[in-house]
Amino acid sequence: MQSEAAKLYYFHGRGRSQQSRWALSAAKIPFTNVCLSSSREFEELCASGKLTYNQVPMLEAGGQCISQSMAIVRHAARLGSLFGRDSQESSRCDEILDGITDARGAIISFPFMDDPHECCMRLQQSIQRFWPCFEALIERNASPPYVVGASLTVADVLLAELVDSTSEAFAATFGPEAAVGMLAPFSKLRALHQHVTGLPEIQALKNSDNWFPFPAGKVGADYVRNVRTVLS
Amino acid sequence: MQSEAAKLYYFHGRGRSQQSRWALSAAKIPFTNVCLSSSREFEELCASGKLTYNQVPMLEAGGQCISQSMAIVRHAARLGSLFGRDSQESSRCDEILDGITDARGAIISFPFMDDPHECCMRLQQSIQRFWPCFEALIERNASPPYVVGASLTVADVLLAELVDSTSEAFAATFGPEAAVGMLAPFSKLRALHQHVTGLPEIQALKNSDNWFPFPAGKVGADYVRNVRTVLS
Repeated sequence: MQSEAAKLYYFHGRGRSQQSRWALSAAKIPFTNVCLSSSREFEELCASGKLTYNQVPMLEAGGQCISQSMAIVRHAARLGSLFGRDSQESSRCDEILDGITDARGAIISFPFMDDPHECCMRLQQSIQRFWPCFEALIERNASPPYVVGASLTVADVLLAELVDSTSEAFAATFGPEAAVGMLAPFSKLRALHQHVTGLPEIQALKNSDNWFPFPAGKVGADYVRNVRTVLS
Repeated sequence: MQSEAAKLYYFHGRGRSQQSRWALSAAKIPFTNVCLSSSREFEELCASGKLTYNQVPMLEAGGQCISQSMAIVRHAARLGSLFGRDSQESSRCDEILDGITDARGAIISFPFMDDPHECCMRLQQSIQRFWPCFEALIERNASPPYVVGASLTVADVLLAELVDSTSEAFAATFGPEAAVGMLAPFSKLRALHQHVTGLPEIQALKNSDNWFPFPAGKVGADYVRNVRTVLS
């Protein structure tokens, strides 16, 4: 008997659920998006007691409801054996996940900002600040393309997602060549990104109904309208 | 042969290291504060390659250097068996740790804000927003005073720390009665706080050289000066 697919409750878009989608996919945990459309749906979900902090995203899986986007990511990593071989590797994964959170704020803000150029300037600062640190970690780990240990971890998956969505932000704002130029100095992150996006699980995610396009232009405007409607 | 105590590198004060100190103590991991005093010391630490993101806190333990305050907390929890009995309890711990991070911003800002009353207003909003959620979690867990499972976890330790430092902020700003009044509606968090602060490991922390007083008044001003000197 196959268990029911997990449900990921969120808005109609990427936002704070996107990293969970990559992590769940890499961990081979089947899931479906449950996208909220109205404030009434959100109120009903709050009233159900399933949202610990009256916030989405929330993952409902195997009778458990997990709130907080990074708690969902870590849950997927734990179930998918993507948290390193030992506690030392797990701590390294945590250190990288928390660095990614610090580095990724501008990606979350992108559709909510009036000027995508301003957002890309913030992203550029974040790249200069954090990406050399990520390159150094991959180099020090000495097992390319991986950043922790000798096999895939959640740290690889979320670094690849960071590279992927940052490239999309640059391509949407300045054209595809700008994205290529932005990535040029980071050969190890590029190799890691290529490896992870080539995995059948990530390919399948990108070709599935669980995939949303990057929230630029009309896609972003529709997403922002959806978020505001649900939270109104 | 006893292994060397872990070293926790930070400024002369609480800041982003305080949760790590509670978690390390609860996990019975001996540590000593290494407090930076000058920009030269910080530059030397950066040059050593031990700081993944050129930031403190950093924990050096058993040959491993771990950056990011919550990665240090999770490292302590893992080594001290404070991460729940199974993956379901671990996910619940993560969900609570991430909720505490959302709820705790004003504690970090306290010494950097000109007006402690304004800071306590932000804290008050955060209490109204998050503390009923924490109370509900303890109630749903049905194994008081614990918030996850039937024994101590890192989620208990950091909730107790949140209650402790929030009380101190209110007591320092409005007097001890204000702190008592602030806690009054939250009987389950009070019981949890009483249990955790009564543990011999937390008592020992509070009586050790690793303990700093709450950063109000002169203590806060000295801490802010120290941070600015080191980062200048």
